[in-house]
Amino acid sequence: MTTHDILYRLSETLAARRHADPEKSYAAKLFAGGPDSILKKIGEESAELIIATKDGKRLNIVRESADLIFHVLVLLAHFDMSIEDVSQELRRREGISGIDEKNSRAR
Amino acid sequence: MTTHDILYRLSETLAARRHADPEKSYAAKLFAGGPDSILKKIGEESAELIIATKDGKRLNIVRESADLIFHVLVLLAHFDMSIEDVSQELRRREGISGIDEKNSRAR
Amino acid sequence: MTTHDILYRLSETLAARRHADPEKSYAAKLFAGGPDSILKKIGEESAELIIATKDGKRLNIVRESADLIFHVLVLLAHFDMSIEDVSQELRRREGISGIDEKNSRAR
Amino acid sequence: MTTHDILYRLSETLAARRHADPEKSYAAKLFAGGPDSILKKIGEESAELIIATKDGKRLNIVRESADLIFHVLVLLAHFDMSIEDVSQELRRREGISGIDEKNSRAR
Repeated sequence: MTTHDILYRLSETLAARRHADPEKSYAAKLFAGGPDSILKKIGEESAELIIATKDGKRLNIVRESADLIFHVLVLLAHFDMSIEDVSQELRRREGISGIDEKNSRAR
Repeated sequence: MTTHDILYRLSETLAARRHADPEKSYAAKLFAGGPDSILKKIGEESAELIIATKDGKRLNIVRESADLIFHVLVLLAHFDMSIEDVSQELRRREGISGIDEKNSRAR
Repeated sequence: MTTHDILYRLSETLAARRHADPEKSYAAKLFAGGPDSILKKIGEESAELIIATKDGKRLNIVRESADLIFHVLVLLAHFDMSIEDVSQELRRREGISGIDEKNSRAR
Repeated sequence: MTTHDILYRLSETLAARRHADPEKSYAAKLFAGGPDSILKKIGEESAELIIATKDGKRLNIVRESADLIFHVLVLLAHFDMSIEDVSQELRRREGISGIDEKNSRAR
Protein backbone atom coordinates (compact mmCIF):
# COMPACT_ATOMS: atom_id res chain seq x y z
CA MET A 1 0.00 0.00 0.00
CA THR A 2 1.59 3.28 -1.07
CA THR A 3 1.34 6.80 0.32
CA HIS A 4 -0.75 7.60 -2.77
CA ASP A 5 -3.59 5.58 -1.35
CA ILE A 6 -3.91 7.29 2.01
CA LEU A 7 -6.57 9.79 0.93
CA TYR A 8 -8.69 6.98 -0.49
CA ARG A 9 -8.12 4.77 2.55
CA LEU A 10 -9.04 7.70 4.78
CA SER A 11 -12.25 8.27 2.81
CA GLU A 12 -13.14 4.61 3.39
CA THR A 13 -12.36 4.83 7.10
CA LEU A 14 -14.55 7.93 7.37
CA ALA A 15 -17.43 6.23 5.55
CA ALA A 16 -17.19 3.37 8.06
CA ARG A 17 -17.30 5.77 11.01
CA ARG A 18 -20.37 7.67 9.91
CA HIS A 19 -22.57 5.92 12.42
CA ALA A 20 -19.93 5.04 14.99
CA ASP A 21 -20.08 6.03 18.66
CA PRO A 22 -19.35 9.81 18.84
CA GLU A 23 -17.44 9.22 22.07
CA LYS A 24 -14.94 6.92 20.41
CA SER A 25 -13.80 8.87 17.37
CA TYR A 26 -13.27 12.52 16.47
CA ALA A 27 -14.81 11.93 13.04
CA ALA A 28 -17.86 10.20 14.50
CA LYS A 29 -18.34 13.19 16.80
CA LEU A 30 -18.28 15.52 13.77
CA PHE A 31 -20.78 13.35 11.88
CA ALA A 32 -23.07 13.33 14.92
CA GLY A 33 -22.92 17.13 15.01
CA GLY A 34 -24.37 17.32 11.51
CA PRO A 35 -23.08 19.17 8.45
CA ASP A 36 -23.05 22.58 10.16
CA SER A 37 -20.49 21.40 12.69
CA ILE A 38 -18.30 20.14 9.83
CA LEU A 39 -18.70 23.42 7.94
CA LYS A 40 -17.69 25.43 11.01
CA LYS A 41 -14.54 23.35 11.23
CA ILE A 42 -13.81 24.03 7.54
CA GLY A 43 -14.10 27.77 8.21
CA GLU A 44 -11.86 27.44 11.24
CA GLU A 45 -9.26 25.26 9.52
CA SER A 46 -9.09 27.68 6.56
CA ALA A 47 -8.32 30.47 9.00
CA GLU A 48 -5.67 28.31 10.66
CA LEU A 49 -4.07 27.51 7.30
CA ILE A 50 -3.91 31.22 6.47
CA ILE A 51 -2.34 31.96 9.88
CA ALA A 52 0.19 29.11 9.53
CA THR A 53 1.15 30.24 6.03
CA LYS A 54 1.73 33.80 7.20
CA ASP A 55 3.93 32.41 10.00
CA GLY A 56 5.92 30.67 7.26
CA LYS A 57 6.67 27.40 9.05
CA ARG A 58 6.54 24.65 6.47
CA LEU A 59 5.65 21.92 8.94
CA ASN A 60 2.63 23.87 10.16
CA ILE A 61 1.54 24.68 6.60
CA VAL A 62 1.50 20.94 5.89
CA ARG A 63 -0.35 20.16 9.14
CA GLU A 64 -3.00 22.79 8.57
CA SER A 65 -3.39 21.72 4.91
CA ALA A 66 -3.89 18.17 6.18
CA ASP A 67 -6.45 19.37 8.74
CA LEU A 68 -8.39 21.29 6.09
CA ILE A 69 -8.36 18.44 3.55
CA PHE A 70 -9.31 15.99 6.32
CA HIS A 71 -12.41 18.03 7.14
CA VAL A 72 -13.35 18.27 3.45
CA LEU A 73 -13.18 14.45 3.37
CA VAL A 74 -15.43 14.33 6.45
CA LEU A 75 -17.89 16.64 4.69
CA LEU A 76 -17.86 14.49 1.55
CA ALA A 77 -18.35 11.34 3.65
CA HIS A 78 -21.37 12.96 5.31
CA PHE A 79 -22.94 13.12 1.84
CA ASP A 80 -21.84 9.58 0.93
CA MET A 81 -19.10 10.95 -1.30
CA SER A 82 -15.33 10.67 -1.16
CA ILE A 83 -11.98 11.89 -2.48
CA GLU A 84 -12.78 9.78 -5.54
CA ASP A 85 -15.53 12.25 -6.52
CA VAL A 86 -13.12 15.16 -6.17
CA SER A 87 -10.46 13.29 -8.14
CA GLN A 88 -12.89 12.63 -10.96
CA GLU A 89 -13.87 16.29 -11.01
CA LEU A 90 -10.21 17.38 -11.10
CA ARG A 91 -9.51 14.81 -13.81
CA ARG A 92 -12.42 16.18 -15.86
CA ARG A 93 -10.80 19.60 -15.68
CA GLU A 94 -7.37 18.45 -16.86
CA GLY A 95 -6.52 20.24 -20.05
CA ILE A 96 -9.26 22.80 -19.45
CA SER A 97 -7.94 26.17 -18.30
CA GLY A 98 -9.31 27.39 -14.97
CA ILE A 99 -10.99 30.36 -16.61
CA ASP A 100 -12.72 28.25 -19.26
CA GLU A 101 -13.77 25.79 -16.56
CA LYS A 102 -15.41 28.47 -14.41
CA ASN A 103 -17.19 29.86 -17.46
CA SER A 104 -18.56 26.43 -18.34
CA ARG A 105 -20.55 26.27 -15.11
CA ALA A 106 -24.05 27.62 -14.86
CA ARG A 107 -23.43 30.07 -12.08
CA MET B 1 -2.66 5.90 -14.88
CA THR B 2 -5.58 5.68 -12.45
CA THR B 3 -7.86 8.30 -10.94
CA HIS B 4 -5.90 7.78 -7.72
CA ASP B 5 -2.95 9.56 -9.24
CA ILE B 6 -4.67 12.74 -10.29
CA LEU B 7 -3.82 14.71 -7.12
CA TYR B 8 -0.15 13.76 -7.47
CA ARG B 9 -0.13 14.50 -11.21
CA LEU B 10 -1.79 17.85 -10.49
CA SER B 11 0.86 18.67 -7.87
CA GLU B 12 3.54 17.99 -10.48
CA THR B 13 1.80 20.13 -13.08
CA LEU B 14 1.53 22.98 -10.57
CA ALA B 15 5.22 22.70 -9.68
CA ALA B 16 6.05 22.98 -13.38
CA ARG B 17 3.87 26.10 -13.73
CA ARG B 18 5.40 28.02 -10.85
CA HIS B 19 7.41 30.24 -13.14
CA ALA B 20 5.21 30.03 -16.23
CA ASP B 21 3.72 33.03 -18.00
CA PRO B 22 0.88 34.38 -15.77
CA GLU B 23 -1.11 35.19 -18.89
CA LYS B 24 -1.20 31.59 -20.02
CA SER B 25 -2.35 29.70 -16.94
CA TYR B 26 -4.67 30.38 -14.01
CA ALA B 27 -2.20 28.70 -11.65
CA ALA B 28 0.73 30.74 -12.97
CA LYS B 29 -1.32 33.88 -12.37
CA LEU B 30 -1.90 32.83 -8.76
CA PHE B 31 1.80 32.09 -8.23
CA ALA B 32 2.70 35.47 -9.67
CA GLY B 33 0.32 37.14 -7.20
CA GLY B 34 2.26 35.67 -4.28
CA PRO B 35 1.05 33.66 -1.30
CA ASP B 36 -1.48 36.30 -0.16
CA SER B 37 -3.41 35.99 -3.40
CA ILE B 38 -3.53 32.21 -2.92
CA LEU B 39 -4.65 32.60 0.71
CA LYS B 40 -7.45 34.97 -0.30
CA LYS B 41 -8.66 32.34 -2.75
CA ILE B 42 -8.60 29.72 0.03
CA GLY B 43 -10.77 31.98 2.18
CA GLU B 44 -13.11 32.56 -0.73
CA GLU B 45 -13.32 28.90 -1.76
CA SER B 46 -14.06 27.86 1.84
CA ALA B 47 -16.97 30.29 1.87
CA GLU B 48 -18.17 28.89 -1.47
CA LEU B 49 -17.97 25.33 -0.17
CA ILE B 50 -20.05 26.30 2.86
CA ILE B 51 -22.62 28.01 0.61
CA ALA B 52 -22.75 25.03 -1.78
CA THR B 53 -23.17 22.58 1.09
CA LYS B 54 -26.06 24.59 2.56
CA ASP B 55 -27.67 24.58 -0.91
CA GLY B 56 -27.38 20.79 -0.78
CA LYS B 57 -26.52 20.12 -4.43
CA ARG B 58 -24.06 17.24 -4.49
CA LEU B 59 -22.46 18.23 -7.79
CA ASN B 60 -21.67 21.70 -6.45
CA ILE B 61 -20.32 20.29 -3.18
CA VAL B 62 -17.89 18.20 -5.22
CA ARG B 63 -16.95 21.14 -7.43
CA GLU B 64 -16.33 23.48 -4.52
CA SER B 65 -14.39 20.76 -2.65
CA ALA B 66 -12.26 20.35 -5.78
CA ASP B 67 -11.75 24.13 -5.99
CA LEU B 68 -10.67 24.32 -2.35
CA ILE B 69 -8.30 21.34 -2.57
CA PHE B 70 -6.90 22.69 -5.85
CA HIS B 71 -5.99 25.98 -4.17
CA VAL B 72 -4.40 24.13 -1.23
CA LEU B 73 -2.25 22.30 -3.80
CA VAL B 74 -1.32 25.67 -5.36
CA LEU B 75 -0.33 26.95 -1.90
CA LEU B 76 1.79 23.86 -1.23
CA ALA B 77 3.44 24.18 -4.65
CA HIS B 78 4.30 27.80 -3.85
CA PHE B 79 6.37 26.46 -0.95
CA ASP B 80 7.87 23.63 -3.03
CA MET B 81 5.62 21.11 -1.35
CA SER B 82 2.89 18.85 -2.69
CA ILE B 83 -0.01 16.52 -1.88
CA GLU B 84 2.70 14.00 -1.00
CA ASP B 85 3.59 16.04 2.11
CA VAL B 86 -0.06 16.13 3.16
CA SER B 87 -0.42 12.40 2.51
CA GLN B 88 2.61 11.63 4.66
CA GLU B 89 1.19 13.78 7.44
CA LEU B 90 -2.20 12.05 7.22
CA ARG B 91 -0.46 8.66 7.15
CA ARG B 92 1.50 9.60 10.27
CA ARG B 93 -1.80 10.27 12.01
CA GLU B 94 -3.39 6.96 11.07
CA GLY B 95 -4.22 5.10 14.22
CA ILE B 96 -3.82 8.25 16.30
CA SER B 97 -7.11 9.72 17.44
CA GLY B 98 -7.74 13.29 16.38
CA ILE B 99 -7.74 14.51 19.96
CA ASP B 100 -4.45 12.79 20.81
CA GLU B 101 -2.97 14.16 17.59
CA LYS B 102 -3.90 17.78 18.42
CA ASN B 103 -2.51 17.36 21.94
CA SER B 104 0.78 16.05 20.58
CA ARG B 105 1.49 19.34 18.83
CA ALA B 106 3.31 22.14 20.55
CA ARG B 107 0.63 24.75 20.19
CA MET C 1 -23.29 64.70 12.99
CA THR C 2 -20.56 62.86 14.87
CA THR C 3 -18.29 59.97 13.88
CA HIS C 4 -20.47 57.82 16.14
CA ASP C 5 -23.25 58.02 13.62
CA ILE C 6 -21.38 56.82 10.55
CA LEU C 7 -22.36 53.14 10.92
CA TYR C 8 -26.03 54.13 11.22
CA ARG C 9 -25.80 56.60 8.34
CA LEU C 10 -24.09 53.92 6.24
CA SER C 11 -26.87 51.44 7.06
CA GLU C 12 -29.41 54.00 5.84
CA THR C 13 -27.45 54.65 2.65
CA LEU C 14 -27.26 50.92 1.97
CA ALA C 15 -31.00 50.50 2.52
CA ALA C 16 -31.59 53.27 -0.04
CA ARG C 17 -29.32 51.55 -2.58
CA ARG C 18 -30.95 48.16 -2.39
CA HIS C 19 -32.76 48.64 -5.66
CA ALA C 20 -30.38 51.13 -7.27
CA ASP C 21 -28.70 50.64 -10.63
CA PRO C 22 -25.97 47.96 -10.17
CA GLU C 23 -23.77 49.87 -12.59
CA LYS C 24 -23.73 52.97 -10.44
CA SER C 25 -22.80 51.67 -7.01
CA TYR C 26 -20.65 48.87 -5.60
CA ALA C 27 -23.30 48.12 -2.97
CA ALA C 28 -26.09 47.99 -5.57
CA LYS C 29 -23.99 45.51 -7.55
CA LEU C 30 -23.65 43.30 -4.46
CA PHE C 31 -27.41 43.47 -3.78
CA ALA C 32 -28.13 42.53 -7.39
CA GLY C 33 -25.83 39.50 -7.02
CA GLY C 34 -28.00 38.16 -4.21
CA PRO C 35 -27.02 37.02 -0.72
CA ASP C 36 -24.49 34.42 -1.94
CA SER C 37 -22.37 37.11 -3.57
CA ILE C 38 -22.40 39.06 -0.29
CA LEU C 39 -21.50 35.93 1.70
CA LYS C 40 -18.57 35.19 -0.62
CA LYS C 41 -17.27 38.69 0.04
CA ILE C 42 -17.60 38.13 3.80
CA GLY C 43 -15.49 34.97 3.47
CA GLU C 44 -12.95 36.83 1.36
CA GLU C 45 -12.80 39.88 3.62
CA SER C 46 -12.31 37.68 6.70
CA ALA C 47 -9.34 36.07 4.98
CA GLU C 48 -7.99 39.52 4.09
CA LEU C 49 -8.38 40.70 7.70
CA ILE C 50 -6.44 37.67 8.92
CA ILE C 51 -3.69 38.31 6.35
CA ALA C 52 -3.50 42.03 7.22
CA THR C 53 -3.32 41.25 10.95
CA LYS C 54 -0.48 38.79 10.43
CA ASP C 55 1.34 41.47 8.42
CA GLY C 56 0.92 43.71 11.45
CA LYS C 57 0.29 47.02 9.68
CA ARG C 58 -2.24 48.91 11.77
CA LEU C 59 -3.61 50.95 8.87
CA ASN C 60 -4.39 47.79 6.92
CA ILE C 61 -5.96 46.12 9.96
CA VAL C 62 -8.34 49.09 10.19
CA ARG C 63 -9.06 49.04 6.45
CA GLU C 64 -9.78 45.33 6.38
CA SER C 65 -11.91 45.60 9.53
CA ALA C 66 -13.85 48.37 7.81
CA ASP C 67 -14.24 46.22 4.68
CA LEU C 68 -15.54 43.26 6.69
CA ILE C 69 -17.97 45.35 8.77
CA PHE C 70 -19.12 47.14 5.60
CA HIS C 71 -20.05 43.82 3.99
CA VAL C 72 -21.87 42.68 7.16
CA LEU C 73 -23.90 45.90 6.87
CA VAL C 74 -24.64 45.07 3.23
CA LEU C 75 -25.80 41.60 4.28
CA LEU C 76 -28.05 43.03 6.99
CA ALA C 77 -29.48 45.57 4.53
CA HIS C 78 -30.27 42.74 2.13
CA PHE C 79 -32.55 41.34 4.85
CA ASP C 80 -34.01 44.78 5.70
CA MET C 81 -31.94 44.94 8.85
CA SER C 82 -29.20 47.30 9.98
CA ILE C 83 -26.43 48.03 12.49
CA GLU C 84 -29.27 48.98 14.85
CA ASP C 85 -30.28 45.30 15.10
CA VAL C 86 -26.70 44.29 15.88
CA SER C 87 -26.41 47.11 18.44
CA GLN C 88 -29.58 45.98 20.18
CA GLU C 89 -28.28 42.42 20.29
CA LEU C 90 -24.93 43.58 21.72
CA ARG C 91 -26.76 45.77 24.23
CA ARG C 92 -28.88 42.81 25.30
CA ARG C 93 -25.67 40.92 26.05
CA GLU C 94 -24.13 43.66 28.17
CA GLY C 95 -23.52 42.30 31.62
CA ILE C 96 -24.02 38.74 30.42
CA SER C 97 -20.76 36.81 30.15
CA GLY C 98 -19.98 35.41 26.69
CA ILE C 99 -20.19 31.86 27.96
CA ASP C 100 -23.57 32.35 29.63
CA GLU C 101 -24.82 34.12 26.51
CA LYS C 102 -23.83 31.22 24.20
CA ASN C 103 -25.46 28.75 26.60
CA SER C 104 -28.69 30.74 26.61
CA ARG C 105 -29.22 30.12 22.89
CA ALA C 106 -31.09 27.13 21.63
CA ARG C 107 -28.36 25.75 19.45
CA MET D 1 -26.98 56.78 26.63
CA THR D 2 -28.44 55.63 23.33
CA THR D 3 -28.19 52.36 21.41
CA HIS D 4 -25.90 54.24 19.03
CA ASP D 5 -23.21 54.27 21.65
CA ILE D 6 -23.05 50.55 22.37
CA LEU D 7 -20.24 49.79 19.89
CA TYR D 8 -18.12 52.58 21.37
CA ARG D 9 -18.94 51.56 24.94
CA LEU D 10 -18.08 47.97 24.07
CA SER D 11 -14.75 49.08 22.60
CA GLU D 12 -13.98 50.86 25.87
CA THR D 13 -14.98 47.83 27.95
CA LEU D 14 -12.72 45.62 25.81
CA ALA D 15 -9.79 48.02 26.21
CA ALA D 16 -10.26 47.83 29.97
CA ARG D 17 -10.28 44.03 29.91
CA ARG D 18 -7.07 43.62 27.93
CA HIS D 19 -5.08 42.68 30.98
CA ALA D 20 -7.92 41.27 33.09
CA ASP D 21 -7.94 37.78 34.57
CA PRO D 22 -8.58 35.32 31.67
CA GLU D 23 -10.70 33.21 34.02
CA LYS D 24 -13.15 36.00 34.64
CA SER D 25 -14.05 37.22 31.17
CA TYR D 26 -14.43 35.68 27.71
CA ALA D 27 -12.70 38.70 26.16
CA ALA D 28 -9.79 38.52 28.63
CA LYS D 29 -9.37 34.87 27.70
CA LEU D 30 -9.19 35.80 24.01
CA PHE D 31 -6.63 38.55 24.69
CA ALA D 32 -4.52 36.12 26.72
CA GLY D 33 -4.56 33.68 23.76
CA GLY D 34 -2.92 36.29 21.54
CA PRO D 35 -3.96 37.59 18.13
CA ASP D 36 -4.00 34.13 16.49
CA SER D 37 -6.74 32.96 18.84
CA ILE D 38 -8.78 36.04 17.94
CA LEU D 39 -8.18 35.49 14.21
CA LYS D 40 -9.31 31.86 14.45
CA LYS D 41 -12.53 33.07 16.04
CA ILE D 42 -13.01 35.58 13.20
CA GLY D 43 -12.66 32.72 10.68
CA GLU D 44 -15.09 30.62 12.67
CA GLU D 45 -17.64 33.39 13.17
CA SER D 46 -17.57 34.23 9.44
CA ALA D 47 -18.39 30.60 8.69
CA GLU D 48 -21.21 30.71 11.26
CA LEU D 49 -22.61 33.90 9.72
CA ILE D 50 -22.62 32.27 6.28
CA ILE D 51 -24.37 29.18 7.70
CA ALA D 52 -26.95 31.29 9.58
CA THR D 53 -27.65 33.36 6.48
CA LYS D 54 -28.21 30.27 4.36
CA ASP D 55 -30.62 28.99 7.03
CA GLY D 56 -32.48 32.27 6.61
CA LYS D 57 -33.45 32.89 10.23
CA ARG D 58 -33.23 36.64 10.82
CA LEU D 59 -32.59 36.37 14.54
CA ASN D 60 -29.58 34.11 13.94
CA ILE D 61 -28.26 36.38 11.18
CA VAL D 62 -28.28 39.24 13.70
CA ARG D 63 -26.66 37.10 16.42
CA GLU D 64 -23.90 35.86 14.15
CA SER D 65 -23.33 39.38 12.77
CA ALA D 66 -23.01 40.56 16.37
CA ASP D 67 -20.57 37.72 17.15
CA LEU D 68 -18.42 38.57 14.14
CA ILE D 69 -18.38 42.33 14.82
CA PHE D 70 -17.67 41.63 18.51
CA HIS D 71 -14.56 39.64 17.59
CA VAL D 72 -13.41 42.37 15.19
CA LEU D 73 -13.68 44.79 18.14
CA VAL D 74 -11.62 42.38 20.27
CA LEU D 75 -8.98 42.26 17.50
CA LEU D 76 -8.89 46.05 17.27
CA ALA D 77 -8.61 46.34 21.07
CA HIS D 78 -5.66 43.94 21.00
CA PHE D 79 -3.88 46.52 18.84
CA ASP D 80 -5.03 49.46 20.99
CA MET D 81 -7.58 50.46 18.39
CA SER D 82 -11.36 50.63 18.46
CA ILE D 83 -14.58 51.02 16.48
CA GLU D 84 -13.66 54.70 16.30
CA ASP D 85 -10.79 53.86 13.92
CA VAL D 86 -13.14 51.85 11.71
CA SER D 87 -15.73 54.64 11.80
CA GLN D 88 -13.15 57.20 10.74
CA GLU D 89 -12.06 54.95 7.88
CA LEU D 90 -15.67 54.45 6.75
CA ARG D 91 -16.27 58.19 7.06
CA ARG D 92 -13.22 58.87 4.91
CA ARG D 93 -14.74 56.67 2.23
CA GLU D 94 -18.13 58.41 2.23
CA GLY D 95 -18.71 59.83 -1.19
CA ILE D 96 -15.95 57.71 -2.67
CA SER D 97 -17.23 54.78 -4.71
CA GLY D 98 -16.05 51.36 -3.55
CA ILE D 99 -14.16 50.77 -6.78
CA ASP D 100 -12.35 54.12 -6.64
CA GLU D 101 -11.54 53.47 -2.97
CA LYS D 102 -9.96 50.07 -3.68
CA ASN D 103 -7.96 51.57 -6.54
CA SER D 104 -6.65 54.34 -4.29
CA ARG D 105 -4.86 51.83 -2.07
CA ALA D 106 -1.34 50.72 -2.76
CA ARG D 107 -2.07 47.01 -3.03
